[in-house]
Amino acid sequence: MTKKIFGIDLGGTSIKLSVVSTEGDIIDQWSVPTDNKDEGQHIIHDLNQAIDAKMKENNWTNDDILGIGMGSPGVVNREKGTVTGAYNLNWVDEQPVADDIRSYFNADWPIFIENDANVAALGEQWKGAGDHASDVVLVTLGTGVGGGVIVNNQLVVGQGAAGEIGHMFSKEDGRKCTCGKHGCLETVASASGIVWTAGELAYAMDDTGSAIQGRIFNGEKVTSEDIFKAAEAGDIFAEAVVDETMSHLGRALGQIAAVTNPKYILIGGGVANAGQYLLDKVTQHFNESVYPGVGATTHIKLATLGNDAGVYGAASLVMANI
Amino acid sequence: MTKKIFGIDLGGTSIKLSVVSTEGDIIDQWSVPTDNKDEGQHIIHDLNQAIDAKMKENNWTNDDILGIGMGSPGVVNREKGTVTGAYNLNWVDEQPVADDIRSYFNADWPIFIENDANVAALGEQWKGAGDHASDVVLVTLGTGVGGGVIVNNQLVVGQGAAGEIGHMFSKEDGRKCTCGKHGCLETVASASGIVWTAGELAYAMDDTGSAIQGRIFNGEKVTSEDIFKAAEAGDIFAEAVVDETMSHLGRALGQIAAVTNPKYILIGGGVANAGQYLLDKVTQHFNESVYPGVGATTHIKLATLGNDAGVYGAASLVMANI
Repeated sequence: MTKKIFGIDLGGTSIKLSVVSTEGDIIDQWSVPTDNKDEGQHIIHDLNQAIDAKMKENNWTNDDILGIGMGSPGVVNREKGTVTGAYNLNWVDEQPVADDIRSYFNADWPIFIENDANVAALGEQWKGAGDHASDVVLVTLGTGVGGGVIVNNQLVVGQGAAGEIGHMFSKEDGRKCTCGKHGCLETVASASGIVWTAGELAYAMDDTGSAIQGRIFNGEKVTSEDIFKAAEAGDIFAEAVVDETMSHLGRALGQIAAVTNPKYILIGGGVANAGQYLLDKVTQHFNESVYPGVGATTHIKLATLGNDAGVYGAASLVMANI
Repeated sequence: MTKKIFGIDLGGTSIKLSVVSTEGDIIDQWSVPTDNKDEGQHIIHDLNQAIDAKMKENNWTNDDILGIGMGSPGVVNREKGTVTGAYNLNWVDEQPVADDIRSYFNADWPIFIENDANVAALGEQWKGAGDHASDVVLVTLGTGVGGGVIVNNQLVVGQGAAGEIGHMFSKEDGRKCTCGKHGCLETVASASGIVWTAGELAYAMDDTGSAIQGRIFNGEKVTSEDIFKAAEAGDIFAEAVVDETMSHLGRALGQIAAVTNPKYILIGGGVANAGQYLLDKVTQHFNESVYPGVGATTHIKLATLGNDAGVYGAASLVMANI
């Protein structure tokens, strides 16, 4: 029997798992809830039980497993296999994740842990919109703005903090970011950045009669999804918000492309559910600012795997390292 | 006898050559003038004669040569070993550089040709301020702004146009660049960009009594070197010019660092002769804009090899590929 790989995506809501063959075929895929009570001390135990159950179900022994790849939030120590400061797991101190798995199973499996945004980039490269290109960047627009950069078929980790796309300086006199700096891309192009920009513009512009602007004046909650939908339907105020935020995103993508000139920059995350309309807007602003030789060779696309990118990318970590 | 490598840096004024051992020791180094008359058709012939003379001087046969590495201006086709549009060599059409060398010597040497800015980055990584780090970026501030990006010990070429640092969008409502876009870093932080910024600021500011500002008012020529020297000596106007230009450079370096988080970003080129004063200014602005986790791990330094970076980097191309 050929060996199997476990791909794991640790998230604040669920732990997603996959079993992948050494040929790269996805054999099985499921998830278990994340129990982040008691400072997240149940998470690895629950994960171990999920792996154990799958092994028993298939009569697999330790020798049938080639290795484990994992994407995690927080700061990953790749050599030690630990995770620190993963706040949505309630992990503040350093967690010996790889050691805890190996000792539960009494196995000497290779275990590769990587930042979750980086792992998602690998997943999109392998099974999604990255289409096996050797140079791919994934930018995720969610609560924050994250990223993963692949160059020459290798993940770029730099000194540990590569792909911090969300904290690229983006806006002159921009607002304060969670990182302490001002004007980071995340303050403009994340879901909350888009909503904040709408608030600013609502009061900076005349009353356009826009329903979205009116809701802001009334103190009602507006989401980035509402704004994109209204813009696509022709709401002038919402269009202005989309133009302002996507111009900053388009320029940032141009700056990324000037550095690594990837074949694809993929846009993922919840905000990217706005789809083709968002893609057209960001591509327009990208083309306005990017060096022509770079713009002609770097293409912006929507990511296609959604929440599955992580488990696929996690499994690919094992294949890349063995 | 161990084999030898030729490292060659093709430039508009001179062709620089080096002989390097397979252990990476530089055995010999010299240069010949670049004769770019007659559409540059003498250049490769002169280069071949320079190599030939060195081989005869040492009684080397074709078998004693491991390969040739070369840095060239213009657009390089790495597979074909050709160069197109190297205007300071007067090469407009595609030149079969590698084939012309091999046929002159009737040799089957491997010949690696790479963009000159990329080759300089490899040289600084190997023998200069890059200190053998696996992740290094070189930014050259000269007539234009160029760059070379190294990740995981490999040159980043992307789809052929990676490292186009000079054309990163940098300045809102900035002036038109040679590439056709507006506000590129090159329009602000190259030697000519700094002089242009001085001209803009001279008329935007009140008369500060600055000698530099006075020379601009009188229509006299001012260089970026004049501006840095005056700023360091306390000229208020020149300080304002340095602050404006270095703030754009510092932010751009922060954006590069957010993408690849290199250990070192090295500043080279003629403008960098301003030395420690320039380094302090750009580092200050870098730290103001960069994500703290990136700023703590990416260090800005001055390049140390000057014009020698090219020949060393060119030789290293052979060692990396064999």
